[in-house]
Amino acid sequence: MSRVAVIGAGAVGCYYGARLAEAGHEVHFLMRRDYDAVAAGGLRIESVDGDLVLPHPHIARSSEEIGPVDWVICALKATAIEETRALVAPCVGDTTRILLIMNGLGLEERFAEWFGARRVFGGLAFTCINRGEPGTVHHIDYGPVTIAHFEDDASEIAAGMALWAGAKVKTLSASCLLAARWMKLAWNIPFNGLTVTAGGVTTDRVLGMPGLREAAHAVMREVVAAGNADLAAHGLADRLDEGAIVTDLIGRTDVMAAYRPSTMVDFIEGLPMEVDAMFVEPLRRAQALGVATPYLALITAQMQSLDRLARERRGEPT
Amino acid sequence: MSRVAVIGAGAVGCYYGARLAEAGHEVHFLMRRDYDAVAAGGLRIESVDGDLVLPHPHIARSSEEIGPVDWVICALKATAIEETRALVAPCVGDTTRILLIMNGLGLEERFAEWFGARRVFGGLAFTCINRGEPGTVHHIDYGPVTIAHFEDDASEIAAGMALWAGAKVKTLSASCLLAARWMKLAWNIPFNGLTVTAGGVTTDRVLGMPGLREAAHAVMREVVAAGNADLAAHGLADRLDEGAIVTDLIGRTDVMAAYRPSTMVDFIEGLPMEVDAMFVEPLRRAQALGVATPYLALITAQMQSLDRLARERRGEPT
Repeated sequence: MSRVAVIGAGAVGCYYGARLAEAGHEVHFLMRRDYDAVAAGGLRIESVDGDLVLPHPHIARSSEEIGPVDWVICALKATAIEETRALVAPCVGDTTRILLIMNGLGLEERFAEWFGARRVFGGLAFTCINRGEPGTVHHIDYGPVTIAHFEDDASEIAAGMALWAGAKVKTLSASCLLAARWMKLAWNIPFNGLTVTAGGVTTDRVLGMPGLREAAHAVMREVVAAGNADLAAHGLADRLDEGAIVTDLIGRTDVMAAYRPSTMVDFIEGLPMEVDAMFVEPLRRAQALGVATPYLALITAQMQSLDRLARERRGEPT
Repeated sequence: MSRVAVIGAGAVGCYYGARLAEAGHEVHFLMRRDYDAVAAGGLRIESVDGDLVLPHPHIARSSEEIGPVDWVICALKATAIEETRALVAPCVGDTTRILLIMNGLGLEERFAEWFGARRVFGGLAFTCINRGEPGTVHHIDYGPVTIAHFEDDASEIAAGMALWAGAKVKTLSASCLLAARWMKLAWNIPFNGLTVTAGGVTTDRVLGMPGLREAAHAVMREVVAAGNADLAAHGLADRLDEGAIVTDLIGRTDVMAAYRPSTMVDFIEGLPMEVDAMFVEPLRRAQALGVATPYLALITAQMQSLDRLARERRGEPT
């Protein structure tokens, strides 16, 4: 069994951390706003794969209280990237591995700079998880995590898969982290982007209005093209299969419950949105590589404006 | 002097009607929500071209009270198109001419079906006018009206220009109504569309954020291309000059005050937006003609969703 620190105990961190605890791992959750609720009432997971209650999880208000662990699961929002190093560092010892269950492009690069490339894993969760009342998480649909390693090292990937053996989470391995990241973006960019820019709607409305549905297809194709150009530019052999990806991702979303993607929840609640990692960096790479991405460019510009308005409303500098 | 009915006495209708009254015409305003305020306090125009007060304008609660006139100025919102015929008809006699100071594509066609093509004029206002307190209109910038005729008849255009002789409004004539409409859309689509879909911002922010500024250029080029294809499909010789139009419209907007386009005001206030005439119909024509318009397509889809959300919030059927 491993000692695990969940840094960023939002809905996604709590869900996967709880599944590891259920499997017998010693899981410590770094908690901020939900600390008191969880201390009083435990952590409650309402899940399509079976409910779960941790009456007395290990919770901490600081990473120093947790100290070095075998695995850090970092599930912070990408918007917190500048504070991330300080939050993760106290949990990193000589043999610690770090799994990022985060959205966006370029985050593993930062972790590799801070802590060394060998430790860094990408975890790509295809799942529908929303926060409920404080201390409660709703897992609505799907849930597999794809495990990849920053250096695409097969034995490290195997170590990553081994963590989840026995946990009630389906895991897949990806031999190429960058391809897996772009595959994830092929869902996140259309659905996080369009549910926000269409005014704060659920995924079913994006797919139910003909113009938005076409836009979802179009921007997904752009992301696949940008991803393939980026893979080629990195000298990697993997390629994304546009037709298969579009059919698969649209199809899975068609049969999914009306879902509020994380960025849409942030938008509705006036919280910081993951614009830089999820939109700006993919667009930057596409443009640098000469890939035509009009849909991505427009959505990115709109997201930047919407995020700026939200910051102004929160009284933050812009 | 002419007898004039202003149907749709919002900010634009009040402004231009007041300028005609100032020039000595007998101008009747069909008023709804501002009737009592104007009856009590008159109509007040605060304008960069000189303030103007009409202490006792002719105002009516129904078109029947006004009856047949020489000129109908129809300044209704395009969203009211289905009620428009009934509002205009009582003012139309044998020799009545009708000038549409309205936004969007395809509206003159409807008027021509209802009242006969010969009567129908398009008036394209390049101006910044917003409502103030009830009975007050703020004219912030610009103001010329381009006069065109549905059949592009030169003697009718001259009659249209003659109406404004002596009024404190700069008028231009357009020999081709369809070209003039697309020229107007080349401003309206980027600036009405992007100020809304960027979250409800003023024009200066669209031009001040690099991604939105690029998007404004890109969608403007699409509109020009669609317009030229539409002109060719109609067998018309006029063409829009992309480079000159983009330079002119972006340049004029760069030096303009921070402006709230009419659709952005509707968005912020939760009112019906002119989506069909200003976005859907231009997109429909572009797609029918095989013109690539990714920016226009995405903005249109987003506008339809935002308008649907506003209708749901108003409790209207969608």
